[in-house]
Amino acid sequence: MSNEKVGLPKGMRDFGPEVMAKRQHILDAIRSVFRKFGFQALETPAMENLSVLTGKYGDEGDQLIFKVLNSGDYLSKVDMDAKPSAKELTPAIAEKALKYDLTVPFARFVAANRNDLAFPFRRYQIQPVWRADRPQRGRYREFYQCDADVVGTDSLVCEAEIALMVMEVFQLLGIADYSILINNRKVLEGMAETLGIAEHFPAFTVAIDKLDKIGKEKVIAEMCNAGIPEDKATLAFSEFLDSPASNLSFSQTLDKFSAKFKEDGMGAKGIRELKAVASFLKLANGDADHVRFDPTLARGLSYYTGAIFEVKVNNVSIGSVCGGGRYDNLTGLFGLPGMSGVGISFGVDRIYDVMEELGLFPEEVTRGTEVLVTNFDGEATMAGFALVNRLRQAGISAELFPDAAKLKKQLNYANQKKVPYVVLLGSEEIKNGQLTLKDMDEGTQETMTAEELIQKLKS
Amino acid sequence: MSNEKVGLPKGMRDFGPEVMAKRQHILDAIRSVFRKFGFQALETPAMENLSVLTGKYGDEGDQLIFKVLNSGDYLSKVDMDAKPSAKELTPAIAEKALKYDLTVPFARFVAANRNDLAFPFRRYQIQPVWRADRPQRGRYREFYQCDADVVGTDSLVCEAEIALMVMEVFQLLGIADYSILINNRKVLEGMAETLGIAEHFPAFTVAIDKLDKIGKEKVIAEMCNAGIPEDKATLAFSEFLDSPASNLSFSQTLDKFSAKFKEDGMGAKGIRELKAVASFLKLANGDADHVRFDPTLARGLSYYTGAIFEVKVNNVSIGSVCGGGRYDNLTGLFGLPGMSGVGISFGVDRIYDVMEELGLFPEEVTRGTEVLVTNFDGEATMAGFALVNRLRQAGISAELFPDAAKLKKQLNYANQKKVPYVVLLGSEEIKNGQLTLKDMDEGTQETMTAEELIQKLKS
Repeated sequence: MSNEKVGLPKGMRDFGPEVMAKRQHILDAIRSVFRKFGFQALETPAMENLSVLTGKYGDEGDQLIFKVLNSGDYLSKVDMDAKPSAKELTPAIAEKALKYDLTVPFARFVAANRNDLAFPFRRYQIQPVWRADRPQRGRYREFYQCDADVVGTDSLVCEAEIALMVMEVFQLLGIADYSILINNRKVLEGMAETLGIAEHFPAFTVAIDKLDKIGKEKVIAEMCNAGIPEDKATLAFSEFLDSPASNLSFSQTLDKFSAKFKEDGMGAKGIRELKAVASFLKLANGDADHVRFDPTLARGLSYYTGAIFEVKVNNVSIGSVCGGGRYDNLTGLFGLPGMSGVGISFGVDRIYDVMEELGLFPEEVTRGTEVLVTNFDGEATMAGFALVNRLRQAGISAELFPDAAKLKKQLNYANQKKVPYVVLLGSEEIKNGQLTLKDMDEGTQETMTAEELIQKLKS
Repeated sequence: MSNEKVGLPKGMRDFGPEVMAKRQHILDAIRSVFRKFGFQALETPAMENLSVLTGKYGDEGDQLIFKVLNSGDYLSKVDMDAKPSAKELTPAIAEKALKYDLTVPFARFVAANRNDLAFPFRRYQIQPVWRADRPQRGRYREFYQCDADVVGTDSLVCEAEIALMVMEVFQLLGIADYSILINNRKVLEGMAETLGIAEHFPAFTVAIDKLDKIGKEKVIAEMCNAGIPEDKATLAFSEFLDSPASNLSFSQTLDKFSAKFKEDGMGAKGIRELKAVASFLKLANGDADHVRFDPTLARGLSYYTGAIFEVKVNNVSIGSVCGGGRYDNLTGLFGLPGMSGVGISFGVDRIYDVMEELGLFPEEVTRGTEVLVTNFDGEATMAGFALVNRLRQAGISAELFPDAAKLKKQLNYANQKKVPYVVLLGSEEIKNGQLTLKDMDEGTQETMTAEELIQKLKS
């Protein structure tokens, strides 16, 4: 059997039982929090019209969109005599494409259903997306996004709720040592304004966004390349971006930073918005220790206009595990302008890696069935099947080894599937209405009736 | 705004909040039953190598597979001077395809992971699949399949468990009047054997499979066209297929039917297998009224070798809502022969339509948030936000209307989102620590403290 025969396209993954159980543990936590905060589910199809997706992710993004070949004789309307290039041929033979993120389809959905939705519309969406990126460690061509957005309001309550949702998800998952970094695009605009380089704002933020990866020196060099005078680039750091080691709280850092801006400018407006978020957080949760103002946080996407977020797990060398922010005109792309919104996206793959590294998956999560009933012969098959059904009726997940087999084989099966309890049911046991329960973790055995077994497992 | 701009490719659907809530209700029921019976989750990627999929679904099926265009300059290795046809061009420019069902990727997964899986391997898989079929009422180009299969055993316990899973799912969903139709391919083989038309077996079953759609006359005509003598085709009906109106139980019908076959033939073997299933069912569940032996059930797919199932909801004019059967060599396609298995697939879209037609979705399912806290001004925003967080900490899903707005607008929002309770929080209420709770179903109001509200909603 060649590997090709059962192999997967590069960057694609199967999720077997153990991985799935862990992934579902993460997704269940996120979903339950989204629901508690009033977000409702949405799913959009894997395929969109190519025209819906192109031009939304920049030139580089457009290259990474997977296109789906038209059905039937897709060349019938193509002039093959003209020997079209791939670039010319694509729009003629592939009118559909796989979605590249959840945000653009969400914006399309909101614009298409504007008359039927209750605004402010809170939706969550947990679905795979596809990118023809070069696969590498931690980067796949198919991966789940896990987004919550509220559109149709610019209330800063929503920004505070996003931070609270992150806290609640992480609490459920047992991730304790993390930081919710928050900034505001208006604060970044205020910096450019104060430095007198407002016309260079896009290049300014794009450069800052790379600080984590390339360091201060190279960011300054990139700013200079983009036409920002070197003294201004250096001043950007000494004045705003050099991080002061500080024990101050979220609100205290904001107070300190606000002095850097004149009162009627963009920077001060951004700080005021962040202060409002801080006061909501204080109201909801005395312990807002996880939230930190980070003036160097820039986020790549140009559509953000207000608060921006990233979440990092401390002492784990994985980038940010969540990201999001406020945008003012996302649905404008689809003919519905002036719809402000704010959203957060949880990176499931990275959260998975963090939890694996920190050993945070509870053992129960990966357990298969709760009870395996062994099977040694035809008589035991009947008795075992009756018992298994009794257990299931009591709400206990159970299975009968379907074939009569050696004990060792059946115990191996239970071990592999991480079944915690095995019931031994031999002819002696069947005769006297008793069974032997083997605790697979402890290695102990005890004898009891079926009724006692049910009581034990239900308690 | 043109419709094209926000429109979807044909045969594709968005699932908005209400539809999603109902779909999740169905999927949660199915998933919980799968788990209780020891099935574990698997997910395979949307894309497979085209070579994995082609040749598995017949010529017609191959046409309906969605192909994904290679990335980059996909024409660089194509000889465009040769003016290739679409059929010649496709394998050169589209090496990946979207999965057409869950069965073939499952077989590929089992073959690829044969050394790591615990056999018998019970897996469930709930994912979308794609078919470039002509869209029509009830038929889409993207739809969920919801499968459970156990491979690596030929124990008839598994057939009985499939029927029990269907019963438990339908009980959870409130579908009461339905039939689990069961037959066995060996019984069909026995018919052909007894009639002396064994060499026509494939055409014989393909014709019978159409009985529901085209009726007895046309099935006989189709058999004759395939080379089966007319007297044999007629005899097939009078001897085996004409359904006797009967009040007999599953086992009794089998007893009656078994007399038609000689003891050492395939037909008798099929009947013995079905009788074993009947005896397991009797053991598990006194009430096996839903299970009926249907000798006219044939199922189109050629890979079935033993029991075959379909489930129909009575008095609803929708075809079968579940289907499945036993196969002996599915993984053989991928180099792993001799792996017997049996599976069932729940048709989520059809179950949805049935439940809608019968009015079976509980009202709670589509309720959005449990409580909406109103918001009339800045002071109320702070007080409301504090209250909402208190409710959430008590495990109650709650939301604050994020902007100060007129009461009517906020009540409309609650109605649209089917929020059952609205908290009115005016300055008077804030001052005296009371709130007014409006029951949106009853239209009644009462005054209470936040603590009393929590107690009321938690009980």
